[in-house]
Amino acid sequence: MKRILNKEAVKYLGKKVRVLGWVNSRRDHGKIVFLDLRDRSGILQIVTTKNLAKGIKDEYVLEIEGFLKKRPKEMINPELETGQIELKAKKIKILAKSASLPFDLRDLKLTLPTLLDFRPLTLRNQKIKAIFKIEEEVINSFRNTIRKLGFTEFQSPIIVPTATEGGAEVFHIDYYDKDAYLAQSPQLYKQILVAVFERVFTITKAFRAEPSVTTRHLSEYISLDCEMDLVNSWEELMDTCQIIIRNIFSDLEKNCQKELKIWKANIPKLSKKIPRLKLREAQEIIFKRTARDNRKEPDLTPEDEKEISDFSREKYGSDLIFITHFPTKKRPFYTYPDPEDPEYTLSFDLLCRGLEIVTGGQRINEYEKLIKNIKKFGLKLKDFEYYLQAFKYGMPPEGGFAMGAERIVKQILGLDNIREASLFPRDMERIDQRLSVLQPKKKK
Amino acid sequence: MKRILNKEAVKYLGKKVRVLGWVNSRRDHGKIVFLDLRDRSGILQIVTTKNLAKGIKDEYVLEIEGFLKKRPKEMINPELETGQIELKAKKIKILAKSASLPFDLRDLKLTLPTLLDFRPLTLRNQKIKAIFKIEEEVINSFRNTIRKLGFTEFQSPIIVPTATEGGAEVFHIDYYDKDAYLAQSPQLYKQILVAVFERVFTITKAFRAEPSVTTRHLSEYISLDCEMDLVNSWEELMDTCQIIIRNIFSDLEKNCQKELKIWKANIPKLSKKIPRLKLREAQEIIFKRTARDNRKEPDLTPEDEKEISDFSREKYGSDLIFITHFPTKKRPFYTYPDPEDPEYTLSFDLLCRGLEIVTGGQRINEYEKLIKNIKKFGLKLKDFEYYLQAFKYGMPPEGGFAMGAERIVKQILGLDNIREASLFPRDMERIDQRLSVLQPKKKK
Repeated sequence: MKRILNKEAVKYLGKKVRVLGWVNSRRDHGKIVFLDLRDRSGILQIVTTKNLAKGIKDEYVLEIEGFLKKRPKEMINPELETGQIELKAKKIKILAKSASLPFDLRDLKLTLPTLLDFRPLTLRNQKIKAIFKIEEEVINSFRNTIRKLGFTEFQSPIIVPTATEGGAEVFHIDYYDKDAYLAQSPQLYKQILVAVFERVFTITKAFRAEPSVTTRHLSEYISLDCEMDLVNSWEELMDTCQIIIRNIFSDLEKNCQKELKIWKANIPKLSKKIPRLKLREAQEIIFKRTARDNRKEPDLTPEDEKEISDFSREKYGSDLIFITHFPTKKRPFYTYPDPEDPEYTLSFDLLCRGLEIVTGGQRINEYEKLIKNIKKFGLKLKDFEYYLQAFKYGMPPEGGFAMGAERIVKQILGLDNIREASLFPRDMERIDQRLSVLQPKKKK
Repeated sequence: MKRILNKEAVKYLGKKVRVLGWVNSRRDHGKIVFLDLRDRSGILQIVTTKNLAKGIKDEYVLEIEGFLKKRPKEMINPELETGQIELKAKKIKILAKSASLPFDLRDLKLTLPTLLDFRPLTLRNQKIKAIFKIEEEVINSFRNTIRKLGFTEFQSPIIVPTATEGGAEVFHIDYYDKDAYLAQSPQLYKQILVAVFERVFTITKAFRAEPSVTTRHLSEYISLDCEMDLVNSWEELMDTCQIIIRNIFSDLEKNCQKELKIWKANIPKLSKKIPRLKLREAQEIIFKRTARDNRKEPDLTPEDEKEISDFSREKYGSDLIFITHFPTKKRPFYTYPDPEDPEYTLSFDLLCRGLEIVTGGQRINEYEKLIKNIKKFGLKLKDFEYYLQAFKYGMPPEGGFAMGAERIVKQILGLDNIREASLFPRDMERIDQRLSVLQPKKKK
């Protein structure tokens, strides 16, 4: 007999079927036993006898044959897709047993570290699992939109030869008898490929050896990256970003109603055009609203990001706001200086509900200017020879941006900690298990 | 004026338009100059004057305004999508200059090392660029098919805590004050997730510290990985693999005619069902055909792989063949032994034109059996505590496979070396540039 999925069961009312899944819960009522069977499509109620259900506990994996019946009226569950029906089991085969659970998997009341210690188990919880259905949809929506916009997908290298963007926050690899590093971003590669494909994107991992533990940083995160030639103005970058974000939100509303409901999450509000403010304008507004004078700071503090997001919501009805024109000395060497005021750059961050979720800008495409800037930033020209080929042989005005997938999910669902939005989060203290447990001492 | 793409030009015959792209070639005929302008959609012929085209050389990036006209009959190029028309330039703006090219970019006659030394430039060659359009399509087809089959996509971790599958071919990372490694595969994570999503896939990078340079290995490669519960038999894995492969081939024929033609490539032949032979049966056949007696070897040699592929093509009309039941001691600890003959496993390789492009099999899903096997393989139980949670709490029979994206592309296009199918190949001797040039000595 062909196995059917739980959610298909409604189509087989009155028929004999075969289902397969995990025991989500067991309820005994005298001689009758109810099992909630969970498969990838949802939950189906099984009615059986004490005899047939002998020894069966939560998380056992079962294969069940039986007849699909309408539930008695008083037993209908409107919350469930299959809430009108149940399966009367004729045969139950145990495919896998489970040890007794260390906690109630349906109602997790654990601290985050414990949740993560038991990640292979706690991911089975419907609410936690929903986070990653949302994340899959965010990534998929990004990919679908940007493909339609004529971008070519590539797989960006993870192993890189030098810590190219400078800074100490880079992981070192023993690469045969040489040195290598984990890519901090696909930046240099996506730029190279603009001269090949004009418009490119990649869904890749980026790595930062963050020297501290915060609720907003991961050592390994998912970066949704793109790069394109600019035809009229650097603002095309924000226009493109806005199209992608709008589609992500509408795809989530279309395809993830169930998951959003579990989290009681509201999709962030978007005005017709996401407001765009220069950093200095934003700081002026914050100063007026709070008397906090950060008007000479090179970036927004986390507190400022929240404040300007509040302002955007109140004034424009938008949970998102672009902040533009960050100072030249605070952005990477390849960032394009504003021709009208070279102290500032043609760069932007996109804030969503008080957190930066996208960063981008126009890049320097002129070969000589780029060489000058590499030197000015104190970097070694030799490290960039390969990259510079792309500019030596004809590169049009171009730019791009990177979106943090976990951050987008965090802000949509209102998660407290970015680790909740990472399947297997890595940080200073953890790779799967806590490092203090796994490896007391460093090798060598 | 809105910029149009070259391939859209046919729709604007007689109209004034604006185009943008790279000079693919320049031909001077007295006072008249012809430019082939290349953008992401294709090539358009520009007709202009010596005056307007002053100083313009190959790979310059231009913005051109002009009128679209029909070509004179004798000038029609049937090979080109826009071969019936040309643009009479009225205004040419140089967006970026190019240095003189070090070789003819349209007709590359370089050794592979030189091709790779100049990768940012040589990728612009139409034939080389076509490889990566094919690769994008292979990956996209895999994703589309497997999504339709009910698989959930996840992003697998790159940083892992231990060299879990054993063996020396693993890269070490300095992870804060601890040790970590580059993932050799997403194996353990995709297995964990079967108990969460039932069917999962990931498009990820895998890393092997290959101690030698071959034409078939990369230090960093693209792995198309999936894992699923088994409902009836382990052969569902090969059934699923066959569906994916068939769709990849038909999607390429549908969407990449131009690229296949450039390479004069034929899609591999598929019989209705890809033949399946046990390793020992295959070795017996090879022995009969060649008198080469490898009947006790634990794997096929590269020579054997070619021989059995020849056999498959001759006997079954199939360029692909599954080889199954590899010896237990040569497969990883998690591989399921054949209940009928535990010296062999429920595992398979898929060969395409003499090269393994997929490997997979059923896994041990029983908790106690898995623990026993980890010990038997001389591995430390402690390293697997996290992974084992998935099996302790109910895991059905399951299995999966991994497809090497670069290998698939190599076999379809008939490339000599797998490096040609990697945008930025990494090996013992190269990360972008040759390591001997970049880093004479190791750090520390």
